[in-house]
Amino acid sequence: MTMLEPKISSVGTNTVRPDGIDKVTGRAIYGADVRLPNMIVGRVKRSPHAHAIIKNIDVSKALALPGVLAVVTSDDFPEPVEAILQTLRGPMPAQWDIERLMARRKVLFKGHPVAAIAATDVHIAEDALDLIEVEYEVLPPVVTIDDALAPDAPILHDDGLDSLVEDLFQPVDGRPSNIARTVEMGFGDIEEGFSQAEVVLERVYETAMSHQGYIETHNATAIWNQDGKITLWTSTQGAFGIRQNVSRVLGISLGDLRVIPAEIGGGFGGKTVVYLEPIAALLSRKSGRPVQVTMNRTEVLEATGPTSGTRSFVKIGATREGKIVAADIRLEYEAGAYPGSPVAGGARCALGPYVVPHQRILGLDIVLNRPKTAAYRAPGAPASEFAVEAVLDELAEMLDIDPMELRDMNAAVEGDRRSDGATHGSVGSREVITTTSEHPHYRAEITQKDVGRGVAMGFWQNGGGESSAYANVHEDGKVTLITGSVDIGGQRASLAMQFADTLGINYEDINSLVGDTDTIGYTGNTGGSRTTFATGWAVYQAAVDISNQLEERIAKIWEVSVDDVNYSPIDASLHGPGDLVMTFKDAAAKLPATGGMVQGRADLVSTNVGKVGACFGAHIADVHVDRDTGKVTVLRYTAIQDVGRAIHPAYVEGQIQGGAVQGIGMALNEEYVYNDDGSMANSSFLDYRMPVANDLPAIDTVLVEVPNPGHPFGVRGVGEVPIVPPLAAIANAIYDAVGIRVSSLPANPESILRELAELES
Amino acid sequence: MTMLEPKISSVGTNTVRPDGIDKVTGRAIYGADVRLPNMIVGRVKRSPHAHAIIKNIDVSKALALPGVLAVVTSDDFPEPVEAILQTLRGPMPAQWDIERLMARRKVLFKGHPVAAIAATDVHIAEDALDLIEVEYEVLPPVVTIDDALAPDAPILHDDGLDSLVEDLFQPVDGRPSNIARTVEMGFGDIEEGFSQAEVVLERVYETAMSHQGYIETHNATAIWNQDGKITLWTSTQGAFGIRQNVSRVLGISLGDLRVIPAEIGGGFGGKTVVYLEPIAALLSRKSGRPVQVTMNRTEVLEATGPTSGTRSFVKIGATREGKIVAADIRLEYEAGAYPGSPVAGGARCALGPYVVPHQRILGLDIVLNRPKTAAYRAPGAPASEFAVEAVLDELAEMLDIDPMELRDMNAAVEGDRRSDGATHGSVGSREVITTTSEHPHYRAEITQKDVGRGVAMGFWQNGGGESSAYANVHEDGKVTLITGSVDIGGQRASLAMQFADTLGINYEDINSLVGDTDTIGYTGNTGGSRTTFATGWAVYQAAVDISNQLEERIAKIWEVSVDDVNYSPIDASLHGPGDLVMTFKDAAAKLPATGGMVQGRADLVSTNVGKVGACFGAHIADVHVDRDTGKVTVLRYTAIQDVGRAIHPAYVEGQIQGGAVQGIGMALNEEYVYNDDGSMANSSFLDYRMPVANDLPAIDTVLVEVPNPGHPFGVRGVGEVPIVPPLAAIANAIYDAVGIRVSSLPANPESILRELAELES
Repeated sequence: MTMLEPKISSVGTNTVRPDGIDKVTGRAIYGADVRLPNMIVGRVKRSPHAHAIIKNIDVSKALALPGVLAVVTSDDFPEPVEAILQTLRGPMPAQWDIERLMARRKVLFKGHPVAAIAATDVHIAEDALDLIEVEYEVLPPVVTIDDALAPDAPILHDDGLDSLVEDLFQPVDGRPSNIARTVEMGFGDIEEGFSQAEVVLERVYETAMSHQGYIETHNATAIWNQDGKITLWTSTQGAFGIRQNVSRVLGISLGDLRVIPAEIGGGFGGKTVVYLEPIAALLSRKSGRPVQVTMNRTEVLEATGPTSGTRSFVKIGATREGKIVAADIRLEYEAGAYPGSPVAGGARCALGPYVVPHQRILGLDIVLNRPKTAAYRAPGAPASEFAVEAVLDELAEMLDIDPMELRDMNAAVEGDRRSDGATHGSVGSREVITTTSEHPHYRAEITQKDVGRGVAMGFWQNGGGESSAYANVHEDGKVTLITGSVDIGGQRASLAMQFADTLGINYEDINSLVGDTDTIGYTGNTGGSRTTFATGWAVYQAAVDISNQLEERIAKIWEVSVDDVNYSPIDASLHGPGDLVMTFKDAAAKLPATGGMVQGRADLVSTNVGKVGACFGAHIADVHVDRDTGKVTVLRYTAIQDVGRAIHPAYVEGQIQGGAVQGIGMALNEEYVYNDDGSMANSSFLDYRMPVANDLPAIDTVLVEVPNPGHPFGVRGVGEVPIVPPLAAIANAIYDAVGIRVSSLPANPESILRELAELES
Repeated sequence: MTMLEPKISSVGTNTVRPDGIDKVTGRAIYGADVRLPNMIVGRVKRSPHAHAIIKNIDVSKALALPGVLAVVTSDDFPEPVEAILQTLRGPMPAQWDIERLMARRKVLFKGHPVAAIAATDVHIAEDALDLIEVEYEVLPPVVTIDDALAPDAPILHDDGLDSLVEDLFQPVDGRPSNIARTVEMGFGDIEEGFSQAEVVLERVYETAMSHQGYIETHNATAIWNQDGKITLWTSTQGAFGIRQNVSRVLGISLGDLRVIPAEIGGGFGGKTVVYLEPIAALLSRKSGRPVQVTMNRTEVLEATGPTSGTRSFVKIGATREGKIVAADIRLEYEAGAYPGSPVAGGARCALGPYVVPHQRILGLDIVLNRPKTAAYRAPGAPASEFAVEAVLDELAEMLDIDPMELRDMNAAVEGDRRSDGATHGSVGSREVITTTSEHPHYRAEITQKDVGRGVAMGFWQNGGGESSAYANVHEDGKVTLITGSVDIGGQRASLAMQFADTLGINYEDINSLVGDTDTIGYTGNTGGSRTTFATGWAVYQAAVDISNQLEERIAKIWEVSVDDVNYSPIDASLHGPGDLVMTFKDAAAKLPATGGMVQGRADLVSTNVGKVGACFGAHIADVHVDRDTGKVTVLRYTAIQDVGRAIHPAYVEGQIQGGAVQGIGMALNEEYVYNDDGSMANSSFLDYRMPVANDLPAIDTVLVEVPNPGHPFGVRGVGEVPIVPPLAAIANAIYDAVGIRVSSLPANPESILRELAELES
């Protein structure tokens, strides 16, 4: 394959969004908008208890209700398998996923599905839910990490799946525990490291369980056809991931399952998990009808994956000059009812922005009677990086070093070792630090009372993985581009722009579409800040593939050797010997008569062809603390980030602003409030407090562009990092404002008032 | 590209139809089943007159009706263009198509659209149609060929489009005529030919206008988005053809138009033409809503393309031994209201089965006030071949030669010249003749009174053209296969079978889908008996493409040269040096870890890579003629046909049986009955008499397999030929039964009684 040097033309501009009009006019088809002939409605019956044994489920009255066409319980799912399934793309515990989807012997969180029903309309379905009789033996719930680790803690997974328990839960005193998994990383000699330290800070931090808060609730529409094939429509970040998971929990072949991704109203990591899809499929199989199941907000909050509440123990040692010499970190992450918190991500990123010669990081994955956590933007990183960034703020104060200067002194750059053993490639850490230090916001004087400024950095390694692209040239020179990457944050635009510039053709001539699991090759989830990078590689290669085919085809017309024909993106033309020139459009017009149209394609593992570029950001926050009410108001906020190359700057800014707002939510407001019985006290958007527009100033963004040399357009992922710095930036700003070190987030009015009272006492 | 020798395994068997369950359960989505949020309903206002000038259209009352959201008239279509548009795929008269879709100055047939309306429900739309006031000046209609050719005939296209008229209508006596186009072909010296003849027969034959009779009526659903892009769902034989035509009549770019083919309930050539699609699109643009328009049966019969009524003058000369030496043929075909009858097809095929050293064929395309004709199965051939086959029957009788022996003596074989100047490739004419002559039906004695036997041959050259295919390998070894060929007669199965056998994998592992104009490369219509051949070539090449990619990928795993790795369909495995072997399934499973999945593709012009194989058939019909009622009953019917290779024999038999039944309909029952005012007297299936199951015996089929050497599986198209022989076979059988030579079809009871009366008088 002859490579092409792209002509940067649409890249770097704010092109019109291909999905914009559909969304503005309400025409876009989200999952719940899918309509099929004879479709019926499914609803899920959920546990009112956080922890209980299911003694009996009686569905007979529900089934007798006219209009009810099917009821599903755990009996309809495949039998338990005790081993972890070794799938082609890594190990996954199938049984847990089945039990999470539909409780079998025990319910492990309030909202845990126990049955599902399909009926001819939603009212009948909801009435029928009440007719399902479930007998429970209520068990004491495990609501906090302390509950979970207590010596006499009720054990969630002590229900006969012995081999599973032994393999995956750490035995404590010879019996299973609620500790599911331990992650360890680090290098150097931790004792030696601390022996070099002249100052040592040791702190404990907590963050609360919080939800991604996507506006669109979960949904699934399924047809289980009589030939055994299933078609599924769902709002997801990755059709192939859903296919993989549904195929696994239902025990059906991948090739018999087609997953069609609908438009998606936000995901942030949370729409990578199956909840309703297998239930809709089973209801369809039993009813013989297409079935659509949707959640309400309470179901989303109580029964889909938030991110972990966490506790982080951080001990950092430094020289008096401010050089960090050692770090010892213990992370305790809530997994929810089943193992699988993002503690590994937390461990990998905790020290990400820095060089720490001696380091040890231990991560615990702890189960408790809360919903199973799911990925949430930079999964695991906000909590652990909050802890480290808060310690660094104290350290800077203690050593009387400017906070950004301290970070500069310890900044990780190309060639430095990362906690996970990898080595930093080309990164923009210094450029971000310099830009931040020199930013007018950072240098502006603070004159008001009870106003303070905080700063913090963030790191995310970004993702790579598999992507495919397919492009179909029309004879008028327009091109349809199909990728497998669900468009959450502008992928249709950012991928079409890269495709267009690779060939030097107009962005407006590209019709950019999202394929499904049958119409495009395997493509990983839109998540982990991988898509613009990895699928960008795929569309680049698909464009090159087209240029190569055009060279072959036009060489035949010109009757010259293909070696003498070269495609140039500069003028979007083919050049032959002498002054032979033909534009892309002219060549496209000649295709019908010269052997048919051309299709371009690429399937790739992005790290085989390129190199993921890690991402750094720094945020500056000014806050005011109201000493009377405890309310913290963000007055000014600036996010500086190395974005590699901003393909579509407005989308990049949107990603940064959105991430910052979510981080501010974690810092100030958002949390799952639990009652002692394990029920969530605030399971609606009235009570679960997400920041809204009038809570916030405009978030200023500064795009630092240090191109990733491992990508034809220099792309780094940009979506994850901005959620990381706000937690510490806000906490550090609160300290600067009123002198209290908030160690437990969110810093809501109640906790601020308590801390202020303690400070004054 | 290394080629593969397919392993014939599923090919030749009656595999399960991929669309079978969806169709049996009513789940298949036909065009009228498409449902979109906020979709509204469109209906068409049609002319009650066959020929009239539109004086005025007043839509104000209709627009004032609550619920009416848009009205469209010819004013909403692009302005007239006087030239023929030179499109990339041949010339097309744009203006005619626009005026056919929506009358501008004149209406030219009863049912001609004059306006269209979109409303929130169907009842409002239909009420609103009555509120549209159209003022006409009624003109005398041209209903028959004689009307059209009369010296004082009203001229349909005499309305100011002068350049168009001059270019395309033959001037007669210095003024425009209703003769649109003349086709001439032939070779040799016609005078010389007839001078060698010892017997000469000169006859005139007529056939009636008849409709394809697809069960599903026309439909279109459109969204004209505010960004100028249109998405169209429609039941069609070819999404790309619809795209081409809609783009042309609306003056929008191909790349801005996506046509998604729905399931189709029959086409037979008639669903290659746009009727409702541009109207639905314009109604959507004006209303801002998705619009669905459907036809009822009367609209289909009155306003969509039937095939031509025809008149054929045939003069054939032969030696006493039965050798045909000369033929002079004049074909007069009704075009309907706009030029474009299938007279060229009639001319090409009239003498198709035979060697005629001196021949001249003249074809006239005649406009009259009837719906514009459209393609109908072997377009043009049934009428002209009927005429020739009827003459041959007389000739055989006159010379006392067995009818099949006469045909054998004159049979065209490989290397013989065809009327259109082409040369016959490898054909199965002799095999068909021999099989027919030896068939028990042909040799069975007739003992009943008024029962006779007729035989006739048929020829169709079959089609080639452009096709694309795309295949997507899943890691479980299943494959999704996407082609652009709409599935009318089993293409999903026949293409998946060819694909599977090329790789030697299981047919059941192929998920065979039909793409749309964005998701697959350009592919011609499913029609002209081209699809299993041409798209078969494409799926073959796409499979080979996959095998080549697997060779490359697995060579890397084995660390050997790609030249040492060969894919074999015999065991569906890759073979390397020594005893290295890996199955297709194992290789697929390794793809995720070795560079991503693979996509196979092919875009081709089938005649660049292969050679179309023409098709011959012979039918034997036994009929009983009821002398009291004139009713002709088909007692026994056998269709013998060279099918190249029957990929899916049950589908091939279905094609032959279906074609034969349609031909029998033309022979015995079907016709448009016109009143003098140009209105159709039988525009419903109650009055338009199609043969139904209890009219007919089981049609026996004999599949003669003379593989086409120009195709990897030996495919010849099979769908067209079977409609050709029934007309003459039935007419010849009627003669054999009761001694009357029916020269005007259909041979309905009225005409049989009239002929019998003449015979007896």
